[in-house]
Amino acid sequence: MGEKNYDLAIVGAGPAGMSAAINARARDKSVIIFNSGQVAKKIDWAPEINNYLGFSNVTGSELAQQFISHIEDLEVPIINEKVVKAYPMGEKVMITTNGENYAAKKLILAIGVVQEAKITGEAKFLGKGISYCATCDGKLYKDKDVLVISDSNHHEDEANFLADICKNIYYVPQYDKIKNLDERIEVVKGEVEEITGDDLANRVQLSSGEYDVDGIFILRETVPPTEIVPGLELDGEYIAVNRKFETSIESVYAAGDCIGRPLQIGKAVGEGQVAALNALKKLDQ
Amino acid sequence: MGEKNYDLAIVGAGPAGMSAAINARARDKSVIIFNSGQVAKKIDWAPEINNYLGFSNVTGSELAQQFISHIEDLEVPIINEKVVKAYPMGEKVMITTNGENYAAKKLILAIGVVQEAKITGEAKFLGKGISYCATCDGKLYKDKDVLVISDSNHHEDEANFLADICKNIYYVPQYDKIKNLDERIEVVKGEVEEITGDDLANRVQLSSGEYDVDGIFILRETVPPTEIVPGLELDGEYIAVNRKFETSIESVYAAGDCIGRPLQIGKAVGEGQVAALNALKKLDQ
Repeated sequence: MGEKNYDLAIVGAGPAGMSAAINARARDKSVIIFNSGQVAKKIDWAPEINNYLGFSNVTGSELAQQFISHIEDLEVPIINEKVVKAYPMGEKVMITTNGENYAAKKLILAIGVVQEAKITGEAKFLGKGISYCATCDGKLYKDKDVLVISDSNHHEDEANFLADICKNIYYVPQYDKIKNLDERIEVVKGEVEEITGDDLANRVQLSSGEYDVDGIFILRETVPPTEIVPGLELDGEYIAVNRKFETSIESVYAAGDCIGRPLQIGKAVGEGQVAALNALKKLDQ
Repeated sequence: MGEKNYDLAIVGAGPAGMSAAINARARDKSVIIFNSGQVAKKIDWAPEINNYLGFSNVTGSELAQQFISHIEDLEVPIINEKVVKAYPMGEKVMITTNGENYAAKKLILAIGVVQEAKITGEAKFLGKGISYCATCDGKLYKDKDVLVISDSNHHEDEANFLADICKNIYYVPQYDKIKNLDERIEVVKGEVEEITGDDLANRVQLSSGEYDVDGIFILRETVPPTEIVPGLELDGEYIAVNRKFETSIESVYAAGDCIGRPLQIGKAVGEGQVAALNALKKLDQ
């Protein structure tokens, strides 16, 4: 199973990620963007944007469309998969999504506002019995009991993957309407109050009762960056970078909202550009 | 002679300066840009630009026009005067151009690639007998002899200002065709080799001969930033800034090419935005 190889991989298709991508293409490098869900989602929501130079008084949706056209013109592939793990290995960064493996010489995290571990107990058990990817880690729980916390029906397919593998599956939707869940999965309503355990997380306290399980899956569109890249240093709630936009992990860069305020398009575009140029410069040396 | 007051003054109408300006206008602050010569000149020269997100494959001239339209839409005034001095004084930064005085609460230097003192001896005599502004300092040399080094016929009007004041004026054009020089000014051809003097600069060595004078004017479109803002710290050939884009001088920020590589539009736009937002945030505190 040979993984696909790129010069530069980017997590996130917001302004920082797209700017990094077009700068890599302008230098004729191979580049890929991973983006789970809608491209340029946050911009698309904005009713009006007038402080990104060159676009006077556009709607967010118009600007998002311009950005998307630009990366389409430069033939940048956007892969609709969620990155769940990335780590440097020799000359490459290995990247695992909820479906495939990839490799890139350099990685830029442009994941937007950092998704923190939100559930009580979640941060404590990162990497210890909590998984953010059912297709990646499902097999670890063959014939065992698992509980799945999910914030969107986009994740139902991923949960369904567990139905063939695990024994009892409890699915706790943090949203209203279930759309397409395998009937072997038991839906459990309730607020998630706490995750507990001894060495490994193995109990979930819901407002409606307590569940003892062998594994816990938390399915969200974004995964905490410290979970994606083990050992990644944060600076408060943001990813720590130096002036070259290098993180604490070799070959991994970060740009845009995930490295700090102000959370603005121009800033993100500039940082994505510089992160890409710095990363690619290292390739050419 | 009351000076005009602004929340934010910006030196330079390239992408960093224009981005700073639109961000100030988007927050309803009063803003002014000083730009001697052509707006967005460096961009305008580029045959093709494809790495500023949102504009796929435009000519430099098309992109420059979009930028200019944006600042026109937001009614940002651009003053075609050369800033020759700026210094903080209490709550304000006082700004002197080759024609007027202004005041602003904050100043952003977005002057592009830093103009260094280029002539042998020039750096040594900065502030000591060398002036970059005839209209500002001409009166200091009433009935005295001066020599003017000029790199463009744009400066001929400024040199003409000296004709009513000084005794002998030697004009050394570093360009081909004189257009509109006062006949009381003596044109001297030759390469400028060195400026010398004791405490003050008072002798210019040309390839065609030596000139002993009381004052020396160097007229260029841009003035060295350490001459504009006395005490400004450099980092190598660039203006030193911290992560908030603050320079070593209170209330003075810098952004874009003048603070370092890569010399790119996206980087400049992002930095101009963040510098403006940081400067304005301080105003609101």
